Amino acid sequence: MSNGLNSFLFSTPEMSRIFAAQAHLRAMVRFEWALTCALEKQGLAEPGSESVLASLLDAAFVDVDQLELKARDVGNIAIPFVRQLTAAVKARDERASYAIHLGATSQDVIDSALVSQIRDALHLLNGAIGQLDTALVAQVRAHRETLLTGRTWLQPGPPTTLGLKLSGTLAALRRSRDRMHSAAERTLVLQFGGAVGTLAALGTAGTAVSAELARILELREPELPWHAQRDNLAEMVQVIATLTGSLAKFAQDIALLMQAEVGEASEGVRDGHGGSSTMPHKHNPVACAAVVAVHARMAGLVATMLNAMPQEHERGLGLWQAEWELVPEVFQLASASLAYSLEIAENLQVDATRMRANFDALLGLTLSEAVSVALAPKIGRSAANDLLRKATTRAAKERRHLREVLMQMPDITAHMTHEDIEALMDPGAYLGSTQKFIARVLGEPDAHS
Amino acid sequence: MSNGLNSFLFSTPEMSRIFAAQAHLRAMVRFEWALTCALEKQGLAEPGSESVLASLLDAAFVDVDQLELKARDVGNIAIPFVRQLTAAVKARDERASYAIHLGATSQDVIDSALVSQIRDALHLLNGAIGQLDTALVAQVRAHRETLLTGRTWLQPGPPTTLGLKLSGTLAALRRSRDRMHSAAERTLVLQFGGAVGTLAALGTAGTAVSAELARILELREPELPWHAQRDNLAEMVQVIATLTGSLAKFAQDIALLMQAEVGEASEGVRDGHGGSSTMPHKHNPVACAAVVAVHARMAGLVATMLNAMPQEHERGLGLWQAEWELVPEVFQLASASLAYSLEIAENLQVDATRMRANFDALLGLTLSEAVSVALAPKIGRSAANDLLRKATTRAAKERRHLREVLMQMPDITAHMTHEDIEALMDPGAYLGSTQKFIARVLGEPDAHS
Amino acid sequence: MSNGLNSFLFSTPEMSRIFAAQAHLRAMVRFEWALTCALEKQGLAEPGSESVLASLLDAAFVDVDQLELKARDVGNIAIPFVRQLTAAVKARDERASYAIHLGATSQDVIDSALVSQIRDALHLLNGAIGQLDTALVAQVRAHRETLLTGRTWLQPGPPTTLGLKLSGTLAALRRSRDRMHSAAERTLVLQFGGAVGTLAALGTAGTAVSAELARILELREPELPWHAQRDNLAEMVQVIATLTGSLAKFAQDIALLMQAEVGEASEGVRDGHGGSSTMPHKHNPVACAAVVAVHARMAGLVATMLNAMPQEHERGLGLWQAEWELVPEVFQLASASLAYSLEIAENLQVDATRMRANFDALLGLTLSEAVSVALAPKIGRSAANDLLRKATTRAAKERRHLREVLMQMPDITAHMTHEDIEALMDPGAYLGSTQKFIARVLGEPDAHS
Amino acid sequence: MSNGLNSFLFSTPEMSRIFAAQAHLRAMVRFEWALTCALEKQGLAEPGSESVLASLLDAAFVDVDQLELKARDVGNIAIPFVRQLTAAVKARDERASYAIHLGATSQDVIDSALVSQIRDALHLLNGAIGQLDTALVAQVRAHRETLLTGRTWLQPGPPTTLGLKLSGTLAALRRSRDRMHSAAERTLVLQFGGAVGTLAALGTAGTAVSAELARILELREPELPWHAQRDNLAEMVQVIATLTGSLAKFAQDIALLMQAEVGEASEGVRDGHGGSSTMPHKHNPVACAAVVAVHARMAGLVATMLNAMPQEHERGLGLWQAEWELVPEVFQLASASLAYSLEIAENLQVDATRMRANFDALLGLTLSEAVSVALAPKIGRSAANDLLRKATTRAAKERRHLREVLMQMPDITAHMTHEDIEALMDPGAYLGSTQKFIARVLGEPDAHS
Repeated sequence: MSNGLNSFLFSTPEMSRIFAAQAHLRAMVRFEWALTCALEKQGLAEPGSESVLASLLDAAFVDVDQLELKARDVGNIAIPFVRQLTAAVKARDERASYAIHLGATSQDVIDSALVSQIRDALHLLNGAIGQLDTALVAQVRAHRETLLTGRTWLQPGPPTTLGLKLSGTLAALRRSRDRMHSAAERTLVLQFGGAVGTLAALGTAGTAVSAELARILELREPELPWHAQRDNLAEMVQVIATLTGSLAKFAQDIALLMQAEVGEASEGVRDGHGGSSTMPHKHNPVACAAVVAVHARMAGLVATMLNAMPQEHERGLGLWQAEWELVPEVFQLASASLAYSLEIAENLQVDATRMRANFDALLGLTLSEAVSVALAPKIGRSAANDLLRKATTRAAKERRHLREVLMQMPDITAHMTHEDIEALMDPGAYLGSTQKFIARVLGEPDAHS
Repeated sequence: MSNGLNSFLFSTPEMSRIFAAQAHLRAMVRFEWALTCALEKQGLAEPGSESVLASLLDAAFVDVDQLELKARDVGNIAIPFVRQLTAAVKARDERASYAIHLGATSQDVIDSALVSQIRDALHLLNGAIGQLDTALVAQVRAHRETLLTGRTWLQPGPPTTLGLKLSGTLAALRRSRDRMHSAAERTLVLQFGGAVGTLAALGTAGTAVSAELARILELREPELPWHAQRDNLAEMVQVIATLTGSLAKFAQDIALLMQAEVGEASEGVRDGHGGSSTMPHKHNPVACAAVVAVHARMAGLVATMLNAMPQEHERGLGLWQAEWELVPEVFQLASASLAYSLEIAENLQVDATRMRANFDALLGLTLSEAVSVALAPKIGRSAANDLLRKATTRAAKERRHLREVLMQMPDITAHMTHEDIEALMDPGAYLGSTQKFIARVLGEPDAHS
Repeated sequence: MSNGLNSFLFSTPEMSRIFAAQAHLRAMVRFEWALTCALEKQGLAEPGSESVLASLLDAAFVDVDQLELKARDVGNIAIPFVRQLTAAVKARDERASYAIHLGATSQDVIDSALVSQIRDALHLLNGAIGQLDTALVAQVRAHRETLLTGRTWLQPGPPTTLGLKLSGTLAALRRSRDRMHSAAERTLVLQFGGAVGTLAALGTAGTAVSAELARILELREPELPWHAQRDNLAEMVQVIATLTGSLAKFAQDIALLMQAEVGEASEGVRDGHGGSSTMPHKHNPVACAAVVAVHARMAGLVATMLNAMPQEHERGLGLWQAEWELVPEVFQLASASLAYSLEIAENLQVDATRMRANFDALLGLTLSEAVSVALAPKIGRSAANDLLRKATTRAAKERRHLREVLMQMPDITAHMTHEDIEALMDPGAYLGSTQKFIARVLGEPDAHS
Repeated sequence: MSNGLNSFLFSTPEMSRIFAAQAHLRAMVRFEWALTCALEKQGLAEPGSESVLASLLDAAFVDVDQLELKARDVGNIAIPFVRQLTAAVKARDERASYAIHLGATSQDVIDSALVSQIRDALHLLNGAIGQLDTALVAQVRAHRETLLTGRTWLQPGPPTTLGLKLSGTLAALRRSRDRMHSAAERTLVLQFGGAVGTLAALGTAGTAVSAELARILELREPELPWHAQRDNLAEMVQVIATLTGSLAKFAQDIALLMQAEVGEASEGVRDGHGGSSTMPHKHNPVACAAVVAVHARMAGLVATMLNAMPQEHERGLGLWQAEWELVPEVFQLASASLAYSLEIAENLQVDATRMRANFDALLGLTLSEAVSVALAPKIGRSAANDLLRKATTRAAKERRHLREVLMQMPDITAHMTHEDIEALMDPGAYLGSTQKFIARVLGEPDAHS
């Protein structure tokens, strides 16, 4: 019901097309056409019926205003849709209209049309994930040794590298891709059960028609109709929300690095991008904001899908309807999240000098752990920790580099030389398994050795 | 981003108009026009500027495609909108364009336009609440003594009346109306603070312009700008979700009463209403389903509003954007919920005979409490309860009326005569304070005595 | 923070034990012990340290009051916990304490302990799923031909069988089991990264220690630490919420069938079960209510997990903490849902006679589709539908059986004999693919032919 | 069901006491005692019954293990609780036990006990709000002129003051206090309706008993029982979540200001506070994290309350139960949020020098708007904006102060002198209505003139 003015932030044109009214109606005609094909093959529809329906696959016959008007009375668009389709077919060949929708119920055509749209939507999302994977791999490679401050609780810690930071996103992206694949296996199935899921109207031909229908629509045939079992759709929506969650983490980190006082990375500037209505100097992280905004909307939608699961008996009252606008919305939101994430990943501006300068400005305090660890075997981790807490407190208070303070503390110099201390103050030497972790994510040979 | 095909279920045409793209743009022009008026009054805009903007209030000058294209770069539609407005004004009178948007930031125009739309939307909702109140009052009056089975845990209990049942909904509706009124007091306020909420660009004239702007837009002036303080909007959305929750309870009860095996009430049949695509005999509770579906979507939207509250610093990153499509959606959903609820309340079909028959079919078991209570002063509530549990178990097992069983139990007849028992088996005599409660809700004189 | 009085509804004793304070602390000691083992193997801990920690695996040394007091200052229990552990070890052997927690950060021990608890919790859940599967299979087999009214929109439709109805739940349960298995593959991984996920404190020994630690704890080693990448935990919680959603659908259907006016099935009565505090006659569907209640709480918890995903940088501020009480809660809720579902499935009382009587009471109206379908090849589905709508309206109005009405309609009898009509009025003959669907779910030979 | 180890973050000891098991049971005894008083007054209980119950008000008689065991069978603790109470009374005076719980249903005692606990909880929260108000007022006063960078989209903008920033939180806090007051008016009402809300068991004495019971319990009497109308409770929970949302915004801003690279404010350091398990130098924003964590959990709980609203008929199945542990949790979370917020507000360390230095480090770019506004009356806002965008781009590129760049741009100097430019570069002169806004929030005389 959105008026579309803000769609630039919450969808992509390609994804919006998949779920547009016309595409929706075409997916419904396609279901009815495929059903007629399957019925005809079983001798349940007049020979030649299929070709009449085939001529209507563009859904141009649909009178949308009339459709909506009638839908208000009967509760869904499938009923007036089938009526309009029947009239259109009848106008061409009366007997071709006899078996239209035979064996099916409204929910069969609505759900199966949705599943077909989801298949197309997943295709788009998978393409976008592939592009983002490529962009992230390039950045991880470029910045595998780009040192920056590691941050926890929004406070500085020991160093890490930008490559490792982005590897976390890359690995999460791939887990999401795997989850989407598994969910697709379960979700991309035909819905076809008739009024109460028994296919009673087709007598003994039910499963034969069902199998053929699935084949034509290029969907798998489920074990049994799933009118009131919505777990697969719920899973699909959840899996996508998990993806946008990982992307929001990525975007938010970039926005934090892009703060003027941090200035370590930025979205990348193009002409006109990120301007302000009042502040001529501003460069706003528009893409980051979009990715954050999308995910902020997702959790609520997932909650609705879960709450809508207990649908009554053979087909429920109201909860199914609650899914209708939501599933397309989820895919549109995800498409925007991926598009903006790609924009960030491809155009990321990195200021490695600033990263190092910010780290150095911390007076070596964030390397206190390195010293503590070096002392631990001699005096115990606990005592070492206490000693370093004293040293860092003094360094911070006097605004002197930790190196100097340490060199003046007898408790320290009793155990290490000035050269030892100097070596411990090199952030590049305190990266532990960073390169091994990156190598694993990049799938480099021997990464797991 | 919904394609609109299912809007029949999730909005009303009137509410959709309030939040349509053109109305949205007109509300934005109106803000800029009013700002120019206020600035002109303070000598901050060229005399006569206002009249040039007044000629553009229909927003016909806006090139929507261009707007969306540019919005993608800068993150909101206000920036290109102000640019298009400036160009349109300039084409008419260059100097009239000089002060456009002066002192304001994008969020000022977007938020204030939204608040104006909310005011219109609340007006619609309040009208609908008034109609529903009237319809419910009529039904409460008509059915204040219409006896039906009280049900708890979806199991039958002692009798109640339909009037009392509907009084609960009526009282809740009125509490929602009160909540909406309080929330409106807080929410219907101007947003005007400039870049960081100081109105710095207006020097010392800030609050004078702000007061005048509020006056023209017929909004209250807040204590201070609220760019990153979203509690009022969050409250508004919550209050509306609470309303749809009470309506969902109402609709679900009707749908339950409408089950064929219960058959005590129904939505009301009109021609063509509630038909099925496959089952010629069906009469579906379409309006009930709509009201249930609307509320099923609300909780998730409220969760999003709450999660979007911690917006950073003077204006946040992403969470504000998360509200954009959501607030209009909430009002549209609520309008549908009220419209369908009104349909149910006005056309409710009540089968009082069936209500009584269903009650009687329970063999008097649901009046066991009445007997137990009558016995309690003699043998204690606990012992009475145990005795009645025995009696009802026997009655149920032997499928005999509780009356007969009781009359044959010496432990019972030791304390009460057959006449006593007979009297206790009259459901109409076991309604306690029902009429007093109804009188209170109807505001009848002496109701609270 | 619940006071535990209502735990009977929202957990099982077994699951509560897994997440109890002592178990939580023991899992934390176990992590530190295993880390010491791994360090010792790499020569990073004093030989023999491991055996000192091994003697503390029962966590009896922990002073819980002191732990909580200190936790308030530092933000988590791991920091005071490590201090208490260090003191306890020191008291036994000072040098054994030197390497305690070496290389690890608070989140490593908290997350890894949680993952270990999740492994145990999943083991419990999988056992319960297995039992429920068995119980459902038995009920599907017992009732594969037990005919009852199919219901859509809470209105009666053509017949189905209880076996088919329960097959839907059985198939959904198995999909949930598969999802849990996939999620477990991803989730049951070690957390071990040190302060910022580089394992810097371990120098070049990081991955060797990590691998050994994982081996000892019987967890997989992830590609890299996941301190701020929470997708796996979010997935796990969602997968479990999907399970409780399918169970809520099952329980709600049983509660609806258990309504006095329907009376087709019930939870099963045991002594004292389902009584009321006031109504001696009542038998409440307690188990159904529990399963519904559990799921009603799940969606909100899932929303929180998703909203908590964007954790800042290397380890976030606040959102990680938001998970702490929630993940255990989700497992406890799920355990209750499964336990109560098992109670329903094993003790289900079925009244097949009432099922048939309820169906017959509908005057054949719900078989109108069967007649319509039989007519369709002769006059078209649409015309047939119109004809049957006329017939059912008349039958309902006159309260006569559809059979009689049809036999008196010339438009009908022109196409079918009285014998034809009679045959079409047999619900047992209008079950279509019901048995095939059941056979597929039961995995019977040739089910998919 | 939490094991309590993390309660330090998610409750306060005072609030936990209000909702502890014993307090819960005492509130239930109190209800039953008050009911006996009211019944006795109406001649419905044996004279003197009241005093027997009065002797049991400490709930010491309750056998909690037994209570939970029985609760599992009957679905709530009220039923076995009433049984235990009856036995305890009987042991003292048999006839005093006869009228125990007369007229009431389980939900009456459970809901009314909860409402009493909520009253106590609100008292605590209101006290904490008062303290936080005082602390914020002090900080606003102290820092009303403390200049710092205004930030939007996490990017620097024109200046604001810390006083104005905190005024936003103060105003929001007061709106929350008002909302809580309104919600309390509606929520703090007795629940008393008997089995189906008619008070049938009390015959004509229902409302008299109800009025007296309300009086004794110091709760208002509602128009009618609200067993299945949960809007007031839903409102209460939402209002509290709105409060924690405003606090989370406050805490998150402080955490952002506390980033090492920003360093403008911090939580305040006390001994041992905010330490790290591994990093000796760390000072973590523990209180900020707690406030953020609390709110992250709230939205989901609110969603559950809203989803739980459509409770069936006179008393529902499962959704009521879903509220049980959630309402206490919400109050406990809010108490923690307020306690930690108070800690932040009272101990806030402000580095005004760093604030100014950070602002100055921006080379005057964030004052470009001031220059733009000064130019607008001469060349139009749009042309002025373009000019300043050019100037700021150049300044940023060449890393020179905007002042210098402007002084060298003929398009600028044509309209303003060097003195004009210099004056515009003074952040203290570009604060607009800041002091007026603060004065309004502080309620200073003439603030609204």
